[in-house]
Amino acid sequence: MNPKKIEKILSRLNRGDMTIAEAMEALRVLPYEDLHFAKLDHHRELRKGIPEAIYSPGKTDPQILEIASKILARKDEAVFTRMSKTTYERLHSRFGSKVRYFKDARIATVGVMKRATIGKVLIITAGTSDIPVAEESAVTCELLGCKVERLYDVGVAGMHRLTSNLRQFDAADVIIVLAGMEGALPSVVAGLTSKPVIAVPTSVGYGASFSGIAALLGMLSSCSSGIGVVNIDNGFGAGALAATIVKNKRA
Amino acid sequence: MNPKKIEKILSRLNRGDMTIAEAMEALRVLPYEDLHFAKLDHHRELRKGIPEAIYSPGKTDPQILEIASKILARKDEAVFTRMSKTTYERLHSRFGSKVRYFKDARIATVGVMKRATIGKVLIITAGTSDIPVAEESAVTCELLGCKVERLYDVGVAGMHRLTSNLRQFDAADVIIVLAGMEGALPSVVAGLTSKPVIAVPTSVGYGASFSGIAALLGMLSSCSSGIGVVNIDNGFGAGALAATIVKNKRA
Amino acid sequence: MNPKKIEKILSRLNRGDMTIAEAMEALRVLPYEDLHFAKLDHHRELRKGIPEAIYSPGKTDPQILEIASKILARKDEAVFTRMSKTTYERLHSRFGSKVRYFKDARIATVGVMKRATIGKVLIITAGTSDIPVAEESAVTCELLGCKVERLYDVGVAGMHRLTSNLRQFDAADVIIVLAGMEGALPSVVAGLTSKPVIAVPTSVGYGASFSGIAALLGMLSSCSSGIGVVNIDNGFGAGALAATIVKNKRA
Amino acid sequence: MNPKKIEKILSRLNRGDMTIAEAMEALRVLPYEDLHFAKLDHHRELRKGIPEAIYSPGKTDPQILEIASKILARKDEAVFTRMSKTTYERLHSRFGSKVRYFKDARIATVGVMKRATIGKVLIITAGTSDIPVAEESAVTCELLGCKVERLYDVGVAGMHRLTSNLRQFDAADVIIVLAGMEGALPSVVAGLTSKPVIAVPTSVGYGASFSGIAALLGMLSSCSSGIGVVNIDNGFGAGALAATIVKNKRA
Amino acid sequence: MNPKKIEKILSRLNRGDMTIAEAMEALRVLPYEDLHFAKLDHHRELRKGIPEAIYSPGKTDPQILEIASKILARKDEAVFTRMSKTTYERLHSRFGSKVRYFKDARIATVGVMKRATIGKVLIITAGTSDIPVAEESAVTCELLGCKVERLYDVGVAGMHRLTSNLRQFDAADVIIVLAGMEGALPSVVAGLTSKPVIAVPTSVGYGASFSGIAALLGMLSSCSSGIGVVNIDNGFGAGALAATIVKNKRA
Amino acid sequence: MNPKKIEKILSRLNRGDMTIAEAMEALRVLPYEDLHFAKLDHHRELRKGIPEAIYSPGKTDPQILEIASKILARKDEAVFTRMSKTTYERLHSRFGSKVRYFKDARIATVGVMKRATIGKVLIITAGTSDIPVAEESAVTCELLGCKVERLYDVGVAGMHRLTSNLRQFDAADVIIVLAGMEGALPSVVAGLTSKPVIAVPTSVGYGASFSGIAALLGMLSSCSSGIGVVNIDNGFGAGALAATIVKNKRA
Amino acid sequence: MNPKKIEKILSRLNRGDMTIAEAMEALRVLPYEDLHFAKLDHHRELRKGIPEAIYSPGKTDPQILEIASKILARKDEAVFTRMSKTTYERLHSRFGSKVRYFKDARIATVGVMKRATIGKVLIITAGTSDIPVAEESAVTCELLGCKVERLYDVGVAGMHRLTSNLRQFDAADVIIVLAGMEGALPSVVAGLTSKPVIAVPTSVGYGASFSGIAALLGMLSSCSSGIGVVNIDNGFGAGALAATIVKNKRA
Amino acid sequence: MNPKKIEKILSRLNRGDMTIAEAMEALRVLPYEDLHFAKLDHHRELRKGIPEAIYSPGKTDPQILEIASKILARKDEAVFTRMSKTTYERLHSRFGSKVRYFKDARIATVGVMKRATIGKVLIITAGTSDIPVAEESAVTCELLGCKVERLYDVGVAGMHRLTSNLRQFDAADVIIVLAGMEGALPSVVAGLTSKPVIAVPTSVGYGASFSGIAALLGMLSSCSSGIGVVNIDNGFGAGALAATIVKNKRA
Repeated sequence: MNPKKIEKILSRLNRGDMTIAEAMEALRVLPYEDLHFAKLDHHRELRKGIPEAIYSPGKTDPQILEIASKILARKDEAVFTRMSKTTYERLHSRFGSKVRYFKDARIATVGVMKRATIGKVLIITAGTSDIPVAEESAVTCELLGCKVERLYDVGVAGMHRLTSNLRQFDAADVIIVLAGMEGALPSVVAGLTSKPVIAVPTSVGYGASFSGIAALLGMLSSCSSGIGVVNIDNGFGAGALAATIVKNKRA
Repeated sequence: MNPKKIEKILSRLNRGDMTIAEAMEALRVLPYEDLHFAKLDHHRELRKGIPEAIYSPGKTDPQILEIASKILARKDEAVFTRMSKTTYERLHSRFGSKVRYFKDARIATVGVMKRATIGKVLIITAGTSDIPVAEESAVTCELLGCKVERLYDVGVAGMHRLTSNLRQFDAADVIIVLAGMEGALPSVVAGLTSKPVIAVPTSVGYGASFSGIAALLGMLSSCSSGIGVVNIDNGFGAGALAATIVKNKRA
Repeated sequence: MNPKKIEKILSRLNRGDMTIAEAMEALRVLPYEDLHFAKLDHHRELRKGIPEAIYSPGKTDPQILEIASKILARKDEAVFTRMSKTTYERLHSRFGSKVRYFKDARIATVGVMKRATIGKVLIITAGTSDIPVAEESAVTCELLGCKVERLYDVGVAGMHRLTSNLRQFDAADVIIVLAGMEGALPSVVAGLTSKPVIAVPTSVGYGASFSGIAALLGMLSSCSSGIGVVNIDNGFGAGALAATIVKNKRA
Repeated sequence: MNPKKIEKILSRLNRGDMTIAEAMEALRVLPYEDLHFAKLDHHRELRKGIPEAIYSPGKTDPQILEIASKILARKDEAVFTRMSKTTYERLHSRFGSKVRYFKDARIATVGVMKRATIGKVLIITAGTSDIPVAEESAVTCELLGCKVERLYDVGVAGMHRLTSNLRQFDAADVIIVLAGMEGALPSVVAGLTSKPVIAVPTSVGYGASFSGIAALLGMLSSCSSGIGVVNIDNGFGAGALAATIVKNKRA
Repeated sequence: MNPKKIEKILSRLNRGDMTIAEAMEALRVLPYEDLHFAKLDHHRELRKGIPEAIYSPGKTDPQILEIASKILARKDEAVFTRMSKTTYERLHSRFGSKVRYFKDARIATVGVMKRATIGKVLIITAGTSDIPVAEESAVTCELLGCKVERLYDVGVAGMHRLTSNLRQFDAADVIIVLAGMEGALPSVVAGLTSKPVIAVPTSVGYGASFSGIAALLGMLSSCSSGIGVVNIDNGFGAGALAATIVKNKRA
Repeated sequence: MNPKKIEKILSRLNRGDMTIAEAMEALRVLPYEDLHFAKLDHHRELRKGIPEAIYSPGKTDPQILEIASKILARKDEAVFTRMSKTTYERLHSRFGSKVRYFKDARIATVGVMKRATIGKVLIITAGTSDIPVAEESAVTCELLGCKVERLYDVGVAGMHRLTSNLRQFDAADVIIVLAGMEGALPSVVAGLTSKPVIAVPTSVGYGASFSGIAALLGMLSSCSSGIGVVNIDNGFGAGALAATIVKNKRA
Repeated sequence: MNPKKIEKILSRLNRGDMTIAEAMEALRVLPYEDLHFAKLDHHRELRKGIPEAIYSPGKTDPQILEIASKILARKDEAVFTRMSKTTYERLHSRFGSKVRYFKDARIATVGVMKRATIGKVLIITAGTSDIPVAEESAVTCELLGCKVERLYDVGVAGMHRLTSNLRQFDAADVIIVLAGMEGALPSVVAGLTSKPVIAVPTSVGYGASFSGIAALLGMLSSCSSGIGVVNIDNGFGAGALAATIVKNKRA
Repeated sequence: MNPKKIEKILSRLNRGDMTIAEAMEALRVLPYEDLHFAKLDHHRELRKGIPEAIYSPGKTDPQILEIASKILARKDEAVFTRMSKTTYERLHSRFGSKVRYFKDARIATVGVMKRATIGKVLIITAGTSDIPVAEESAVTCELLGCKVERLYDVGVAGMHRLTSNLRQFDAADVIIVLAGMEGALPSVVAGLTSKPVIAVPTSVGYGASFSGIAALLGMLSSCSSGIGVVNIDNGFGAGALAATIVKNKRA
């Protein structure tokens, strides 16, 4: 993955140890990766923006330890979502302070570096049960350098709280809205603001909510413009998209 | 279907032409229906409230003519929904003024008698495309003796029209709300009123609206209380339920 | 949320401490909520009718304690559905008699005040397994001031019990019908009465019942008129809708 | 497909032109089909009972002509379902009276022989729109030797017609019940009879009927015992199953 | 539920204590049920054929004890499906030998009387995992007077076992075929026999089997004639339908 | 909708024609809308950003003419999506140059004003069949002041075109990616860039593509971060979201 | 896409017109594509095996003409699936013999070169209606150098034809099996052969076939090993996979 | 199942103890299976290639012991998939070394004989969580005589690892690709190779992944050619298909 091999070929050509035809052939048979030194560096730069997200459920503790170990070895960074406290504790006992844990968000970070503050994200939930996913968004935003304002539990019964907070809307660069059940909140919020709205359907509800499908379909079918939807319960994805928008705004 | 046969048995018993045992046996072998004169009269009375609804699509014109003919013959009444204008014209050329047609609602009535006015129903639609179904509700309500107020096309962009019409809400006995796409309007209306709300998902929309499924699931999953949902595009059902509630209110 | 700020502006205008233009600007920049004192009072009045329903599963005990605490603090009322007995016991040990528990209905109430009796609701179930949801409806109705008659376990094998209770039908203002499996009972009941029928699909059944979907689709597709459907297992919603209809009847 | 080849092998063995080992080897390498003369004769006998059903939609007229031609060539018989009148006319102009057409049932038969009458099937529909599928069942039953009684259009509004015809139930060997929408009729019928009931969901309805899915799920989830369900709109299948039951009854 | 009240009315009429008009009025206001003595006796007779099935999961032990108690009190009979051994033991400790348990079938019977043997049912499964459902069918058939032959685990790998047992097919009155996964076995069996085939999709499988949906759709879509399908895992329903067919055959 | 009424109340108070209590009461009974002059002005300002989108299918030409007429009357602006050329021609013959039509995008605009250029959006499609939806996005972006670069038909076979255009990625503020079938393209694009990606599933494909569902699910489930998804075929929504992000970037 | 630019850089380095550092920088900023001359040649080689498939429905004739034109311009090759005869005729009138049409398969080819024969594919269908999709597979295989044997219409009624053709199975390198309805045929075929089986669900059927879903689920859930499934009606995909397997066998 | 009976018939014919007609009759009434000695031997030979797969979940330990016992008794071989370690231990304590266990793959084998090495399969996973299914494929391939190369965890973040391993692609006979979530990896791999690709959707993911459905639909809808799909999480099926292709290649 370093440009050494190409430099060597060019040096040999330069010294006359190789003909042009031989150099071209040598380039042709180089492993693909070696050819890409420039692109890959560029790519790594990009990836500094958003660390890889690793979904913890379904992975064994040893697998997670090994993944964390590799990430630290290559001085990379990763966010483990939906991590249990007991798994975190195993990580911590091995890697110490290189691992951080955010309990409400069920997030553990490995090697994630502090970023400069770049903007503000407003996070709104329809209900109390949406908070764990909202915290996943919030912590993701904060890790990526965004200030976060939280406006939780403003569903139908609290609609006036929404309208009484229009100034918070104006102060945000992006608004993330989480809702389960019928998932109508993002439509209402998008109707009240000119900011980009990221909608997160949550699996809160029962019966015809179908674990978030009703909310998902409602958000996708919304008659309000300017809404981008992410997967059910995908708090990380919403946070990462928000931070991407904010980062580009400051760029 | 008339009580003549029972009367005859009782008379014969009375005259001594029959023993009690014979009378009981005679009752036992009577066709079921004859036994039910009382219940059936009672039942017919009930059915005077709400005429039978006949869904026209998938029926041939001759079938519809025959059904209409039978209904008129037994002095009954029926509402044909989703009837095309050409089918109506065939009905009209045969039965004349006994058949009425409501073009916007795509409803034809056969033998439906005028009722006394019994209350008021407010009908609200989210968009223009919901109007044909809304008219099906409206005409049904009017046929069944309700006054109807129409408040059409008050979706997100017109939310202020909703809130500026709260007095109309108070003046209604029941509110019918129709919406396609994400179907959030009934939740919002139910949050603003203490009247019973009947929600009608419509098949308006595309993609993840899935011909009304998104709206249906949203309405069923609504976090607002006091909402009863009917089938997708079932304007007649909503109208009939509204009239049933109004009629019982006046009872 | 009080009208003090507006009164203050008007006083200053009245005293000549402010011009009309200044008063209008002062009104314009008031927090939204302050402008709404009238509406909000009106709104609170409405909400006295039906307390907020809070779905307990997926909320931690501390969250539920905090929600209950806030509700009591603002002298509001709420119904917690699907609450486990152990969670109730934690609530009770903290708030004492302000919290009530209805075991069969799995309902806990916080701050719910006694209402005057306003009418009667008949609640019918197809089977024994539907009873927990039916009790959720029954307790909701009773809390909201309705008398409740229960007619449980009258499915196919008990169809004669249905027909032998037609007088109970006549005595009710509204009928709630709960059924799982194929969910045909509401259609049959609606065919026997002129009262409004609220249908509750339950998740009772297996295989092609799909946890209540077969019953839900059947109820929505019913060829009987005058049926409003609520979400699968939504006993609270059915009770709240029934009480809304009854309350408006007496209004 | 004839036993000639086996006879030839046995003859050669018998004449001493072949050893036993050679005969066994000759049998082993015989085409599979030749070995099965006995079974196949047996199988053909079975198939005399129920002719093959050929679903016409999606087949071109030339393909249908070719299939019919082959069936007649091998003196077999077949039932073409959902055949349009124009396709029938092309068949008829080529094969004449060997082809018969049943317009209401949209069935054409090729080479189907008259059977002796073997029993009686009662066919019940919930509505008028179910009749084309019911006729497919009726004609199938008649072709296979069953007498058919028709009891059409006895849905909710005609429930008393059901109960007033209990004697027709007793007189039937099998009852076929067709219904669209919520599909509750087979449950009701099965609750009133001890005869086998075959349920046919039809695609009649709209919205949450989902072209017969609501009826199908309802019939499968029925709480009544003794019901076998066939595919949506599969009138032929129901008729064939009914005839199979009747035929075995008389066996 | 007895005809006493009617007899009394007739007696009073007979004695001249009542006019015909009074007698008719008295009949009219009789509870529905009393009018039906004949029908209900007839109905009970029917129900002697197939005991009510009660699905145990989702019912508490006290509920099951109460149901059993009522059934025994009215000298009725019932089959409890999917009953756990521990629940059975509670039933047994209370009702003793009036309750029987069939462990492999997970069936408990209450008050079920021995029937005369009436015919033979062949039960075939594709795999080993289908056996619990198959035993539910088998025990149901045996309880209802059928002899049962079991041919288990004859899927693809055992196809030759199917074809080598054609004589068993001929000896049966009805064949029940159970299969999960792709559910192809009923199609194959129906192609080899002229007996009625009852298909039971089971929830055996994973992934795209969708807990029996793949098998269910396959069985409904089968190109073989003469197949009736029951709900996923509905062993009781298949057994009851088979016994109904057999019983009618002997009638 | 104008502040006149409030001004009048304040004037009367100011002149002493009204007490403070009377003024407060007068404010309380004002129609909701009148109270909101400030908010509504603010709201209208917001809506200047994104004109209302009106989905044309399902609306009659007269309805569309009336909607357009009202929009022009209140000097508002709207975008009609999926408009046929013939409907446009009727609009044009009535309103002339106030209506514009974009044939490839099937968009007609009414009263839409030119905006200053505010940034650049890159629009990428997987295939040729995605172009109509892509053009809907492109025209929407252009109407809202964005420059648009089009990179069409870069699916699997053209993957190298993607990678050879990384500089175009860097030059864009937002990237919209449209794909039908398996919908994998947004994942790949998001892996190559640090710009916000808006994913549009299209209904291109057949069979298991299920009219865009496969693409929709794939985009929602993407393992790449920084993707917001809109409804199937919702080119307008994607364009409006992109413009919202761009506009906020420049704010 | 040619290596000229790299050669030029190397020449300049070789001539001393450039330092090694400059050459590396020049390589780094080269468009991605230019770097890939070797890979791309390799890639083109691969693509010679299987031409790109272009799904015609949803594309206008001008779009198809333009695509064909580009393909011919770059001496590439493509297969247009589901092409109507009229579209083909427009292609032919412009490009003449460079375009070929296979009517039964609804395939047009552009620039597809003749391949050497490489093996044999057996194609089996359950019914007549599956033939258009089967021909799509067959023509694809033939274009790619495979001999094709066709064994059409061997469903349940023709099962003996299957077993009597086991030698055809042995002679094939790969077997493609197409079936609609319950889709059981691939399971049966895979149970009779040790050849790789490619299963193609077709949209043949009605009701619970759900346009191929029943067949698709059945094939995926098959209890037979050695089956790979392609999309519903994807004859091209099956043919391409078969040819890929055959070509690799001969490699 | 042995040819003894046929030999006996031929002997008797040969000895003159039977006429040809008697011999033919004797053959006709032979159990089906006896006739098939040749075919069955042939069939068993086929099955030596791929042992039967037995899905362990849902089977009790005694059932599994009995199945294993029968397989060993008839000197057959089987692969038990998804077997828990504790069940394996019970098998091992009874059958000792005849049973082998592969922990990562959750596979136990009974009687599986060593095969000669016949080719190479490359197995690629998108993520770490796909590994258990991938190991099921890998162990299956190895048991069937294939060498296996593993290339795990090469999703979006590791795309360069894919492209840097193109030589591994060339060295493989078949490539198995496993992915959950959006399941895009097989499309990408198939675009980079001319080898047959077997795609395995895994149930890895959450929300709109729907336990593997998103991946399944994506793989079926892939725009890349040459992909065969197996059931969700069906590692054994993929391995068996791969080995079938490899074995036929060497044949």
